[in-house]
Amino acid sequence: MQVRIEPVQPDQVGLLLELIRQLAEYERRLDQVQATEADLRAALFREGSPVRAVLAWRGQEAVGYALYYPVFSTFRGQFALYLEDIFVLPAYRGQGIGLALMRYLAREALRHGYDRIEWQVLDWNTPAIEFYHRLGATPKETEWVPYKLEGEALRRLAAG
Amino acid sequence: MQVRIEPVQPDQVGLLLELIRQLAEYERRLDQVQATEADLRAALFREGSPVRAVLAWRGQEAVGYALYYPVFSTFRGQFALYLEDIFVLPAYRGQGIGLALMRYLAREALRHGYDRIEWQVLDWNTPAIEFYHRLGATPKETEWVPYKLEGEALRRLAAG
Repeated sequence: MQVRIEPVQPDQVGLLLELIRQLAEYERRLDQVQATEADLRAALFREGSPVRAVLAWRGQEAVGYALYYPVFSTFRGQFALYLEDIFVLPAYRGQGIGLALMRYLAREALRHGYDRIEWQVLDWNTPAIEFYHRLGATPKETEWVPYKLEGEALRRLAAG
Repeated sequence: MQVRIEPVQPDQVGLLLELIRQLAEYERRLDQVQATEADLRAALFREGSPVRAVLAWRGQEAVGYALYYPVFSTFRGQFALYLEDIFVLPAYRGQGIGLALMRYLAREALRHGYDRIEWQVLDWNTPAIEFYHRLGATPKETEWVPYKLEGEALRRLAAG
């Protein structure tokens, strides 16, 4: 049975959130999921939001998804498509669904004139890492340390 | 003399590119700067682009900049302000200009309803790391490996 990749519709946001929760469970981070349907709806459908998501369908069943947005490199002067999440339900792996999602994203990137897809993978997720290498993906340099500023520290800075 | 933080205007894109090149030189990556004024103008001013940049002014001189765009976490269901670049000319450091830029960004984040600023710092850039810690910033978990897919591999995937 063929897979179809289609943009998430407003009435499918509940399906998307369920898949996000299944990804979080696979990544052993279910406790970190605080997103609500309203959060996702705002991110995907609010005027001017750059966030996009697609579902992978086998017949009537949503079996995977990808969520992405543009990022910009000042040195390259180019946008990349940043892939925040890609996920296929465990029972449907090895059937080309991840490949169909990545192909959709590659076309989406080129259609927008972006010259790259970028993403991050958990260092223990060997099946995913092997899949990405088969596509020709390469690790980026890693002398960068990610930081965040949030909560009270963020509000204190803003108020100062 | 006070510092003013102001959005980049279309006729200031050349100034911005000069500062980007100086940041790249500081990061020992000048060879990686391929961006043109046209690239930056498109990223900042094309209808619907989420990329924003500000200049820091001392009198008539642009002495620093920041460039940022929104990113979205599906687990948190929230946007963060992603700080792609922040830079102050070496001769103007230690005068509160970086702080003024970060404060502008904190206000910008809260104004948009984002609950976080995120960025990356080079692991050898101790003065920057200390500055961020003084603001209350914290390193993110680092079991994520960044990947990219570009060039021929990207086009091959799209064509497949």
